[in-house]
Formats: sequence, C-alpha cells, structure tokens
Amino acid sequence: MKLSILGAGRVGTAIAFAAVLRGTPSELVLVGRDRRKAEGEAMDLEHAAAFVRPMVVRAASIEETAGSDVIVMSAAIPLEGPKRDSVTEANAAVVRDLATRLGELSPSGVIIVVSNPVDALTLVALRASGLPAAQVLGTGTLLDTGRLRAHLSEASGVHSNDIRAYVLGEHGDSQFAALGVASYGGVRFDANDPVVRRSIDRARSGGYDVAGRKGSTWYGIAAATAMIIHAIDEDTREVLPVSTYLDNYQGVSGVCLGVPCVIGRGGVRRVLPIELDDTERRQLHASAEIVREQSRRAGV
Amino acid sequence: MKLSILGAGRVGTAIAFAAVLRGTPSELVLVGRDRRKAEGEAMDLEHAAAFVRPMVVRAASIEETAGSDVIVMSAAIPLEGPKRDSVTEANAAVVRDLATRLGELSPSGVIIVVSNPVDALTLVALRASGLPAAQVLGTGTLLDTGRLRAHLSEASGVHSNDIRAYVLGEHGDSQFAALGVASYGGVRFDANDPVVRRSIDRARSGGYDVAGRKGSTWYGIAAATAMIIHAIDEDTREVLPVSTYLDNYQGVSGVCLGVPCVIGRGGVRRVLPIELDDTERRQLHASAEIVREQSRRAGV
Amino acid sequence: MKLSILGAGRVGTAIAFAAVLRGTPSELVLVGRDRRKAEGEAMDLEHAAAFVRPMVVRAASIEETAGSDVIVMSAAIPLEGPKRDSVTEANAAVVRDLATRLGELSPSGVIIVVSNPVDALTLVALRASGLPAAQVLGTGTLLDTGRLRAHLSEASGVHSNDIRAYVLGEHGDSQFAALGVASYGGVRFDANDPVVRRSIDRARSGGYDVAGRKGSTWYGIAAATAMIIHAIDEDTREVLPVSTYLDNYQGVSGVCLGVPCVIGRGGVRRVLPIELDDTERRQLHASAEIVREQSRRAGV
Amino acid sequence: MKLSILGAGRVGTAIAFAAVLRGTPSELVLVGRDRRKAEGEAMDLEHAAAFVRPMVVRAASIEETAGSDVIVMSAAIPLEGPKRDSVTEANAAVVRDLATRLGELSPSGVIIVVSNPVDALTLVALRASGLPAAQVLGTGTLLDTGRLRAHLSEASGVHSNDIRAYVLGEHGDSQFAALGVASYGGVRFDANDPVVRRSIDRARSGGYDVAGRKGSTWYGIAAATAMIIHAIDEDTREVLPVSTYLDNYQGVSGVCLGVPCVIGRGGVRRVLPIELDDTERRQLHASAEIVREQSRRAGV
Repeated sequence: MKLSILGAGRVGTAIAFAAVLRGTPSELVLVGRDRRKAEGEAMDLEHAAAFVRPMVVRAASIEETAGSDVIVMSAAIPLEGPKRDSVTEANAAVVRDLATRLGELSPSGVIIVVSNPVDALTLVALRASGLPAAQVLGTGTLLDTGRLRAHLSEASGVHSNDIRAYVLGEHGDSQFAALGVASYGGVRFDANDPVVRRSIDRARSGGYDVAGRKGSTWYGIAAATAMIIHAIDEDTREVLPVSTYLDNYQGVSGVCLGVPCVIGRGGVRRVLPIELDDTERRQLHASAEIVREQSRRAGV
Repeated sequence: MKLSILGAGRVGTAIAFAAVLRGTPSELVLVGRDRRKAEGEAMDLEHAAAFVRPMVVRAASIEETAGSDVIVMSAAIPLEGPKRDSVTEANAAVVRDLATRLGELSPSGVIIVVSNPVDALTLVALRASGLPAAQVLGTGTLLDTGRLRAHLSEASGVHSNDIRAYVLGEHGDSQFAALGVASYGGVRFDANDPVVRRSIDRARSGGYDVAGRKGSTWYGIAAATAMIIHAIDEDTREVLPVSTYLDNYQGVSGVCLGVPCVIGRGGVRRVLPIELDDTERRQLHASAEIVREQSRRAGV
Repeated sequence: MKLSILGAGRVGTAIAFAAVLRGTPSELVLVGRDRRKAEGEAMDLEHAAAFVRPMVVRAASIEETAGSDVIVMSAAIPLEGPKRDSVTEANAAVVRDLATRLGELSPSGVIIVVSNPVDALTLVALRASGLPAAQVLGTGTLLDTGRLRAHLSEASGVHSNDIRAYVLGEHGDSQFAALGVASYGGVRFDANDPVVRRSIDRARSGGYDVAGRKGSTWYGIAAATAMIIHAIDEDTREVLPVSTYLDNYQGVSGVCLGVPCVIGRGGVRRVLPIELDDTERRQLHASAEIVREQSRRAGV
Repeated sequence: MKLSILGAGRVGTAIAFAAVLRGTPSELVLVGRDRRKAEGEAMDLEHAAAFVRPMVVRAASIEETAGSDVIVMSAAIPLEGPKRDSVTEANAAVVRDLATRLGELSPSGVIIVVSNPVDALTLVALRASGLPAAQVLGTGTLLDTGRLRAHLSEASGVHSNDIRAYVLGEHGDSQFAALGVASYGGVRFDANDPVVRRSIDRARSGGYDVAGRKGSTWYGIAAATAMIIHAIDEDTREVLPVSTYLDNYQGVSGVCLGVPCVIGRGGVRRVLPIELDDTERRQLHASAEIVREQSRRAGV
C-alpha cells in the first residue's frame, strides 16, 4: 500500500509516524517544501519502521506520489492565532495547486484533507482534483468525536469505543454533538447533565486548549488520520464522522461537512442518514452556512 | 497472566487456542477429565504458542489452577439434542464441585462460565465459589449479540463493531434484541424491517443451525470468550452482554442473565441500566422466569 | 484478500479460525467433502469473525475458490497410525485432482500444502497445478522449527522469536536442526548440550507425541499456516522454513524440502542458501533421498 | 501499567505517542520543565488515546510518578552540534537529580535512560537511584541496531526481524557491528561486502544524518523506546541491545554499554555472552574506555 503525505511539518510527520507504527504502508512518500528537512524526516521514520516491518520511506517531489492508494494533505500555511479560518485563502491556494496534480497522478487514490479549515478545503480538493466525491474526504469532526468520547469515557468508566456519540458539522466552533441517538451500552446521554455539557464544550475547545499550551496540535489529529488510512487500506467499513460532500443530506447540499460515513476501500462508501432532532438539524444547517461562507472565501 | 481452563474438549481447547493466538496468557493451565488427552492438547497449544510469545502451557489437576487471574469453566456433560437445558442437573453438579474448589484456590480470580445452560450455571458457580458477584460471570448473550451484529453488518455493509445492538436475557430461546436504543452510525433499526427480523431470528437459532450441521459449536464461543478474557486482562472497560447476577435490575432479582456489563480488571465493573421499551422489559422478565426455573432445577 | 481452504476437518477449520482471528481474509471459502458439515463450520467461523472484522465466510464448491489469493490444501485421507507416509498414494490422488483445478481457477494464487507427507505432496501440487514454483509451497519444517524454538526458548528464558535455529529437510523423521549457524542473542548453541539434543528430539517427535495423546494435531499446524498466510498477504518478507522446490540447492534437485525461504507477495520470493556444515549437508541429502522415494510413490 | 516520562520535548512526547498507540500504559504521567506546555502535550496525547483504549494521561510533577512500572528519562539540555557528549556534565546533573528522586518514588520501577550520552548517563542514573542494575538501563545501541537491520533488510529483501545482527558498545562513534555471529535466514554476512560495510557506516552516522537535516531525531528513538517499554510490560523476554551495567563482561567492568540483554518484567533479566571475534572484542574494550572517560566527566 502506497501512502503519500503532503506536508512534512509536525502534523504530517506525526501522521506518518502513526501509520508507520501501525505497519499500514509498504511504501511511504513524504513531500515537503524544504526537501532537505523532509529527507531528515523520512530517514527518522525509516529508522522507526525498522522496528515494525519492511517499508520503503523516502522524501520526494509530488510527481513521485503517482499511483498512491492514499494521499494525506497536511500542507498548510502555519496557523497563527485561534481562528481556524484565518488563513483560508492562503491554504486554499496551496490545496488547489496540489489537488490538481494529485487528481492526475493518482486517479484511483483517496485524498484525505487535514489542513484547516478542513471542511472548506475538502471541497477545494474535491473540485481541483476532479475525483469522485467518495475519493476526497476531510478529517472533519473525527478528532472532535474522539475528544468527546474520551471525556465521556473518563466520566462513565466505559471504553471510548463503546461511547457511541458523534460530533458533527463544521470542524470548528459551530460543531455540535448529535445526542438524540447517542448511547453507551444501551444507556442514553442526558443533554442537560452538566458532565455531558462540559464534555461537549471541552471537545469543541480541545484544539484551542492544546494550541494555547503547546502552540498547535498534532498527536490527536495524527491518531485520527491514521485510523482513516487504516480503514481505507483494510476496507474495514468503520463508521467515522469525516468531512464529505453533501448532496441533499438532511436538506444540506453543496458543502463538505462532518457526518457519519462508512469508510473502506475507495474512501467514503456510504453517507449514513443519522437521526437528528429539530435542534440538531438546525445546528447542522447553521454549520453548513458557516462552511459555505468559508468555502466561498476559499474560492469554491 | 495466569489463565486456567476447566474442560479440555473442543470448546475448552478452542478458547485456549484463541487466547494463545492473542498472546493473552503467560501461563495456561488445562484441566481435563482425561489427563493424557489434556496433555496432548497442551502440547499442541504449546506448539502454537511458539509463533506468538513465551508461554507456559500445561495439563494439570485443578489444584494447579491456584492463583489464576481468570478461570474458564467449559467442563460439561456433552449436549445431546437441541435443548440447552436438557442436562442441567448433571452439569450443575459438575460446576458446583469445580466452583467450590475454585473459590478456595483463586480467591481473586474471575470465573467465566461457558457450560450450558450458562445462565443457571453461572448462578451455581457464584453460589458454590463464594466469590463476589463481580468475579463470576457467564458468556451469556455475547455470542448471540455477535451473531446478530454479523448479520446486520452483512446487511448494512457496516463494520460489526459499529452495529450497536444487544441481544439480552437468556442464552436460549427466550433471548431478545434490545432494539429501542440500538443504532449504527446514528441510524436506528426498524424492528419491522424483514432484514432486521430475520437477523434476530438467525441469531437466536445460530447455535442450533451450527450444531445441526457439525454436531456442536466451538469457534464462535471461543472467539467470544477470548474477548472477555482479554477485556479482564487489559482492563479495557468494554461493554459486553454477559451473564451476571441481577439484584433489582429493571425489577429482576435473584438470577443471572445476559445484560450489558462493563468488563475490566476484577470482572464485571458495572451493570449498565440499558433503556428498554415495554415489550423488551416484558421479554426480560419472561426470560428471567425461564432462567429462574432452570436455576431451580440446577439446585440454586 | 480471498482465502480458500480445501478440507473442512479439524486441521482445515483450525487454520481458518486462526486466520479469522488475525483478521487476514476479507473473504473465506471453505471446501469440504461433506457440504452440510462444511456449512456448519462456515457458520461457526462467521460467528467468530463477528468479533474481528467484516468478513464473508461460506462453504462452497471448489469452483467458487476462483480468484483466490491463497489456497490452503488440508484435504486428506485421515492418518492412521504413526507414519506420515502411510497414505501417500491416496493423498497424492486427492491433491493431484484438486491442484489441477486450482491451477486453472486461481492462476495467480499461492497454494499452501498442509496434507502429509507434505514434501512429496507439495511436488504433486506443483506438477498438477502447472503454477510457477514460487506459488506452490508446503508447510514443511515450519512447525518443527516452531517446536524447537519453543523448547529452546523455555530452556533459555528467551523469546522464541530470538531463537534463531531452523529445522530443515523432510517434515518427518529425517529432519535435522541446522545448528552450525544457529544462535540466540549472539550466543551459539552447543550441539552436544543435552538440553539442545533433547529439544531437537522433542521437535522431531512432537507430532507423534501429540497424536499419541489426542489422536492427531491441529492447533500447532494451524498457527504455523496462519503465519504463512499472513506473510503472503502483508508481503512481510519473513524467513520461514517451508517446503519448496529445490533446483541445485546445496546439490539437491528435483524434490520439495523444508529450507529457509523469504515469504511475501506471490509466495516464495527467495530460497536462502543457508550455511550448512558437512554433517548437516549429508543430512539434507539423506532427507532428500527419503522424500524423493516418497515422491516416487506419490507418482511424481 | 503506569508509565512516566520525564521530559516533555519532542523525544519524550514522541515516546509517549508511540506507547499510547501501542496501548501499553493505562496511566501516563508527563513531567516537563514547562508545566503549561506539558499540559498541552498531555491533552494532545489524551486525544490520541481516545482512538486506542481508556487511558489516564496527565502532566504532573515528579512526585506524581510514584509507583511507576516504567520511567523514561528523556529530560536533557538540548544538544547543540554533532557530538553526543558535548553536554555531558549538564545532562549528568539533570539525570542525577531526577534519578535520586525516582529511586525513592518507584523502588520497583524500571528506569529507561534515553538522554545522551546515554551510556554514561545510564551509569549516573544507576548510581543516583540506588536501584539494582537490572532496573536501570539505557536505550544503548538498540536504535543503531534497528538502523543497521533496516539497511541490511533493504539490501537483502528480507524482513528486518530476520536480520540477526547487533550493533554493540557505545551509542556513539565507537560502536561496532558484531558480524561474527550475525546471519539472516542462516546466511552469514560478509564483513568485506561493500553493501554490508556501507550499512554499518550508515547505522553509525544515522543520528548525524537525521540531525543534520531536521535538527535532531525523535521518531526512530521513540519507536525503539516503545519497544523496550512493551517488552518490560508484557514480559516478552526479547533480546534487545540496551545499555546495561557490565561486571566482567568479556573482560569489561564498571561501565554501562550496549550489549544483548533479555528484557522482561523487572528490566534486564539476563546479559547474554555474545560471541565476539578478536577484532570485535578489541572494539568492545575500546568503546568501554571511551564511555569510561565520559562517565568520569559525568561524575561517576
């Protein structure tokens, strides 16, 4: 399995490290602006792979990503300050250029957009690559969902995998937890429970909380992205809330948003019609409007 | 981690094999009526362990199970015919004798009852061992739940881990699927959907379907039991529908039944109050009465 | 990954179970003489798979193995008595018929022969299938090697993976341990050490020791075979002593024997020229003659 | 399993990330000079853990490491320039202070020293902690060994796990490959083979090669350290070339050096007497003298 990662900064290399430790790729191509630094990262990762399985790891130009099974797009202008969309236009330009080439180089590959604002940039990558919607997805609200599950897991003493609650919508301030259909071991969550409320708030602010302390975040997003890569590679059909193009999904069309998707070979195999109550549906539409505006700024 | 398995027949050795392949135990003790055959099984399993990790595997008397972390009780009079409770009294005698010794030999161990009728025999083992309720559990409806999830997974194209539906009650004909709170990826199941109905029926009849074709079943139950052993060993806090002693659980007391439990170090860490609708609650109570009658026949 | 297993007896289904627990196949086809029993086995295995990953498991005719990535040939006349070659002719006929069909049905698949006498039958399968030598291999001395490593691991207190000693030659009485180049953690084995001698003897007699106690063996060989399947599927390039066709290997030609092979995509990627001392070389040639005679009886 | 990591920089957090992804610890304590930054790292890692298993991750003071099973010491004055021993005295002071406390706080824990110069600092930690020699080890030449295996694996097309060659001695310029007893699949390496020579040189210069390109190294050492942690936690008895205190080892005493050790519960369970030829023995002694001088500068 050939995995290519565009962006050899902290996020991109942490994703590469997580994928290496899982033993997912047999070939790993790292594309960075600073070729010499990317070579250093590739060597460091190759040394890590020595403890896992045979793997070809190298720094290369985007041309050498040709024929990739999965391409992670983590290249971005570094974020300054707390707002994920402050560099929308700049990142959109980066993503557009790269995605255009990727569509030609890996016509049957799956592109995973990690760069922020992830929902708008997923649409940029979809348009620029010319690939089918199933093959272009963003990490969306998967990390937010992981954070929510971690907090509820801690509160309930139950494995996070059994906490069946999704954060949906924008990977940003307008995200929301779909609690109407959420449960753990057959027990529903009470949206008025202060522990639940606080867990949702902590999930929403998680990125800021980390960034405010260490500058930015990379380990959480790396684990989330490695999970998507693995699901595609092994065709696991897991349900993951990733950013996907919506076409009349609960009345929303024309944007990419985080909703529950079945991930497997080929990317998004199905978009699941999660049951939302009226409040949640309003939140989905509100989130869609915010992302629509971001997408406009991103030129799509 | 010391794992002891009482019963070196097909079920017991298949459980041992599954645990060996997961690398769970560092010490595995196999106790069988036919010591020489049990030695052959232990040698065969030791050869399998060579491909996994260092492990001491041996056939021994029950005395040598002392200090076990987990003890699996799969010893039983072989089932003849289709009814799980046809040999209740005979198996109860076997389990009572063994459990009495186990309580003395491994006072901090967890007993997993696999022998059928599993719910009644779990209560027998609980009473005879004198151990706390958390430390004595039965495989209950975990296998039935696995079967239901496999069928719904096949029908929906979604990973079985994302099919959040529990089969509860008796591991037998009176079992039922708690669909009121079930979902996959945020989508509820329609109890009137023919596919759903058929999946529930197939889960209920699964044991008979297999036994009718190959004589009895062992691989499915082995995978299920290995999962419980792993959850205890690694303290994973997974929610598994195992048979546990109920004390005013939705109005049911004094029997062991399959309900969602948090499994971790020490066995059952919590019994979760799954939300049931009126029909399901009646089914739980009906199942409890059937198991209560079995338990009576089993002498508890 | 499509895995087909010919033979739904204890060995074949134990191999299937081990592969299922590793999550290797996405499609598993079980071919047995007794179709109804094979269906029962497939259902039991499907229930086990529910705890692992989405997997299609079914009993089918040999025609439905078409397009397999790996085919395990464990179909055989049950062994009676202690000699592995007592049913050579009968098993050769079974393997010849099946392999002829397999060569047509899965031209790019890898056939793993498990039936005994495995070395002679591997040559039968190679000739009958018409596939390249790399694509037809036997489990050879992998299980014997595992047994030797387990015994030396127990004696030395070192992980069996670090015990670098191969049993080579016939999977039978003429097998031998290549100790000249063997070591663990940089320490050589002393061929005159009574512990080493006894470990080699126990590896040679392991099959008889198990069979004498439980009738025949299946768990050890199942773990070994699952390891080969995994190495092919994941292209791990592991060195495993499997039975492969020799063409002027240390002077031996025209037979299949257990020697160290690099296993990966496509089967045997390389046969490694292990360094043998004079005694070991004589043992290899003696083993070759015995297998040559078996092969003659097998009609190849 | 409680894991504590002293040092919340790139190396320390990459080790934490690798351990989290393996699911090794149930409790992870991160101790950093900058408490707020350490909190950010702990939060980021907690979010990653949400995709693996329930885990308590927190930033804390060294006091809260009490009762750890394993403590990783990666705290260090950042290296400037190419020489690993340039900051020996400064790092020795850091390690001495921390190890003194660790010996009191976790008397049955295992300390893994990662900070450089690792061999001298392992001796510092051993002396300061007052713990038995088995419980204080350094990452030694494990990473160098991994690098060598990766290069030889690439050259031979064989899994790195089958490349049985150890780099021994100082984790520094005087390290050497013990080729006399090395092999892969029973084939010896030719010390005069240009590919082998170049692989050894690349292993020796690997750290500089990476540092020269990306500033310093962290992914390779993180994977190596996570492997040691796992071996201790699961008592795997793997042979790993770690830095351990030598007492008349091939004539070397009174220093810590990288030699093959059996790693399991309690740390170093055995130091293996690897067979060295005359040249290699001289190299071991030369390496010992260099480390002895470093140790002197480090005050031990």
